[in-house]
Amino acid sequence: MSRRPVIAVIGAKDASVEALAEAEALGRGLVDAGFRVATGGLGGVMAAASRGARQADGWEEGRVVGVLPGASADDANPWVDVAVPTGMGYARNVILVAMADVVVAVGGGAGTLSEIAMAWQHHKPIVALELGEGWSARLAGERLDERRADAVVGVKDAAEAVEVVLGLLGR
Amino acid sequence: MSRRPVIAVIGAKDASVEALAEAEALGRGLVDAGFRVATGGLGGVMAAASRGARQADGWEEGRVVGVLPGASADDANPWVDVAVPTGMGYARNVILVAMADVVVAVGGGAGTLSEIAMAWQHHKPIVALELGEGWSARLAGERLDERRADAVVGVKDAAEAVEVVLGLLGR
Amino acid sequence: MSRRPVIAVIGAKDASVEALAEAEALGRGLVDAGFRVATGGLGGVMAAASRGARQADGWEEGRVVGVLPGASADDANPWVDVAVPTGMGYARNVILVAMADVVVAVGGGAGTLSEIAMAWQHHKPIVALELGEGWSARLAGERLDERRADAVVGVKDAAEAVEVVLGLLGR
Amino acid sequence: MSRRPVIAVIGAKDASVEALAEAEALGRGLVDAGFRVATGGLGGVMAAASRGARQADGWEEGRVVGVLPGASADDANPWVDVAVPTGMGYARNVILVAMADVVVAVGGGAGTLSEIAMAWQHHKPIVALELGEGWSARLAGERLDERRADAVVGVKDAAEAVEVVLGLLGR
Repeated sequence: MSRRPVIAVIGAKDASVEALAEAEALGRGLVDAGFRVATGGLGGVMAAASRGARQADGWEEGRVVGVLPGASADDANPWVDVAVPTGMGYARNVILVAMADVVVAVGGGAGTLSEIAMAWQHHKPIVALELGEGWSARLAGERLDERRADAVVGVKDAAEAVEVVLGLLGR
Repeated sequence: MSRRPVIAVIGAKDASVEALAEAEALGRGLVDAGFRVATGGLGGVMAAASRGARQADGWEEGRVVGVLPGASADDANPWVDVAVPTGMGYARNVILVAMADVVVAVGGGAGTLSEIAMAWQHHKPIVALELGEGWSARLAGERLDERRADAVVGVKDAAEAVEVVLGLLGR
Repeated sequence: MSRRPVIAVIGAKDASVEALAEAEALGRGLVDAGFRVATGGLGGVMAAASRGARQADGWEEGRVVGVLPGASADDANPWVDVAVPTGMGYARNVILVAMADVVVAVGGGAGTLSEIAMAWQHHKPIVALELGEGWSARLAGERLDERRADAVVGVKDAAEAVEVVLGLLGR
Repeated sequence: MSRRPVIAVIGAKDASVEALAEAEALGRGLVDAGFRVATGGLGGVMAAASRGARQADGWEEGRVVGVLPGASADDANPWVDVAVPTGMGYARNVILVAMADVVVAVGGGAGTLSEIAMAWQHHKPIVALELGEGWSARLAGERLDERRADAVVGVKDAAEAVEVVLGLLGR
């Protein structure tokens, strides 16, 4: 049996109501599509995606991973099945990106920007929800530099994001 | 639902036949006791514990975690369900210890020694299989320094280790 | 005596001739202005800034730091005085940013983008050389998100960068 | 010019008066012997070695490095010239060991034990002060496992440690 693909959902603690709703739908849709969902394990977009994943019909224990900045598993939001407390602060984002088969960005702040840029460096396919005016929307359709021929794939909502992820992984 | 406890099994790539057999029995026993098993995700004791965990009657997908030193999930042994590629070399041992509710040591080298010492610093209960003459056996029954009142718990084999872990977690 | 301020010069292994010339001038100018210069310790912009720093009139042993992705100090370019081999791959960029009092970006790729975004998250002042069409030039004058009131400070060349750094540090 | 060798002095925040006195003498002696001194940058043995290094006749700015667990350079003790805030907690010990040409252990707790074990894994020469009854004294003269032919070199005091370091580096 090959390993279940992991989709990282990245986004900030502070997010708009619209972004939180899409993150929750994304978590649910990704689990129902057969994937494992990984986030930064805390609140905001991370909690919404984890909660959606946990509440999916297809959820089984172990489907929701939280890669935490702190050193204690107790920091994880309550929908995380597998807590990975790194104790490494922002450097945990490198791990989150490295473990992902595809990275889906929901949000507009500098944290999301740095994660998108790291995902680009790690040659991971990147899907960005075009919500509002932040970095996910702004980078949709862009190539971040010359090292890759593909671009960040912009999508309108969670449902389209799941479709694109399925396509990227040949499913 | 509270999160499933994680038991880290630590030990080296190079291990005796006896250590490998105990590691495999340990992985199996821990999964059948209801736990998630985490290792360093590579070969030797790590592979044996992962294989045992995967082959347990109680195995469900997601029960076997591998926290890898390299940056690619492809480095994981084939029995790992959730690969966490850290790209951080030996520093991944800090994460392995931090995510564990209990650490079980099977082996005698300097790597195992450093992980036992880190688990002690992180105030994690430590169980050590007394096989042969290495560090796990040597530290059984010892307090590593004054910060803790408990000691490394020595056990004779995998079955006793599982019993002790159940006791430590109040089950 | 208070500690000597550290200025991180960030930029890629692959850079234009113009970027390399500015990086070298920047290293020299920062050391002559009394600062310690830190880079990622490898080639391209990192080597050019280190070489300039080493060749400055004001250079004293210890002024040039290289925070390396690999685990061996031998990876450092020959102008690094203090090699910090992290063994942590891209996560070393978090350390480079954390140790800096000001971050100066010379370059346009995704690596530089992720470092600028991390510097923003760490609330470090950011100076960006507006060379060519890459990310340093593109982000000059921008606020990356709402958490900070200041913006990335765009400068035309190394000399202006040194002036801006001196101003930012109240000198 | 080849890079100045780095000697890591490892030991705990809590240490005996004798250990602190030896750590201070060690910092002073290592700087006067031409080396750079690196520690974990905080208090206890770390502060004593840094203070001794700073007060050595041969001190020049840049000779004292502190590799910190936290993300802020302000955590460093006042005798550190080059602060490297890692934000990585105990994982910073991996960096401290990796940057060292020789590791000198002054102390007896689990932290020192884990650092000695990591230094062994990194194939770094290890010198241990035989003070009191802790791990440095206990491991003096031992091989931690089969991977190396050498042993931890036990010494009686700081002066002997400096002599041994000079010999190990062929000076």
